[in-house]
Amino acid sequence: MTTQLHPKLDNGINDYPEVKDFAGGTLQCLCDSNKVEVKIGAQTLHNHACGCSKCWKPEGATFSLVAVVPRENVEVISNEDKLAIVDETTAIQRHFCTECNAHMFGRIENKDHAFYGLDFVHTELSEDKGWSAPQFAAFVSSIIETGTPTSEMDGIRKKLNDLGLPTYDVLSPALMDVIAAKTAELNDTLQK
Amino acid sequence: MTTQLHPKLDNGINDYPEVKDFAGGTLQCLCDSNKVEVKIGAQTLHNHACGCSKCWKPEGATFSLVAVVPRENVEVISNEDKLAIVDETTAIQRHFCTECNAHMFGRIENKDHAFYGLDFVHTELSEDKGWSAPQFAAFVSSIIETGTPTSEMDGIRKKLNDLGLPTYDVLSPALMDVIAAKTAELNDTLQK
Ligand SMILES: [Zn+2]
Ligand SMILES: [Zn+2]
Repeated sequence: MTTQLHPKLDNGINDYPEVKDFAGGTLQCLCDSNKVEVKIGAQTLHNHACGCSKCWKPEGATFSLVAVVPRENVEVISNEDKLAIVDETTAIQRHFCTECNAHMFGRIENKDHAFYGLDFVHTELSEDKGWSAPQFAAFVSSIIETGTPTSEMDGIRKKLNDLGLPTYDVLSPALMDVIAAKTAELNDTLQK
Repeated sequence: MTTQLHPKLDNGINDYPEVKDFAGGTLQCLCDSNKVEVKIGAQTLHNHACGCSKCWKPEGATFSLVAVVPRENVEVISNEDKLAIVDETTAIQRHFCTECNAHMFGRIENKDHAFYGLDFVHTELSEDKGWSAPQFAAFVSSIIETGTPTSEMDGIRKKLNDLGLPTYDVLSPALMDVIAAKTAELNDTLQK
């Protein structure tokens, strides 16, 4: 059995025609009617494939695709009453459609979190074209936890690398440095 | 200021003349007399530079050098009474010399831990030559937490790469896969 990475990745990264000066669009949940709609008023940043077990993924996908955008650019414009939070105790509160289960946005409420102020969104839920393309794959080893055999890992890392996505078992070095700097700031050990 | 990686790395990896069929040696603490001695009855595995704040490092070093060896090959042969555990609540219980502070070995007592059965040792504490050479650098971003400026990170990752050490912000992919497989095994989600 060949593991499917994600419908938007299996045919190559060309499914992401990133557009310069793209200024956002609308995400829609998967319901046939009364769709939850979320307006994103900016281009997204750090789009990446994520192998963690908590990110929402389409049916059959091994990885999610998830990007961030400043929270002030995220606005629920339709059917907000269908939204609920998956788990209020996690750092990222994932607001999902209680009918179709799509995650519409993830939000961090802890002001001491390194990524406070950034919401997590899946731009594949938008029909608008021009969103930022995936740049790396994160939490790759975690897919073993959800059932990918260890023996497939070399092939999967190679497939991702061949798509131009460096693979990491946490986030990218740039983002890990941001997290470490926040920890240092809170511990008063940050050197500039 | 130039960050010192580690005395055994700053002059190149040649300080590690790994010897085929090397069968171990003796670690000694840094005390002038009544040294704690630990006999290691096998070659070490997975030697690597580690940027985490908990591993023991020599004065002025940014990274520790740490390897693993099966616990049955680790035996305290002198001055065991000088040893104590840094923190009994951490997964790795670090046994250190209460006089000179060198960490003589780290041991995992939780049988459900992915690395149960392997002790962590710093072979730079041995005068025997032939120990396994460092293969990668782990927890690199963590050095920001202990005072390395974020602006130096690109240079440090490059310096490590130039030494032939791939850099990771957790452990290496092979080890991360082992950890994920253990989690899957405990969750009963492991696929072979
Ligand atoms: Zn829905
Ligand atoms: Zn000592």
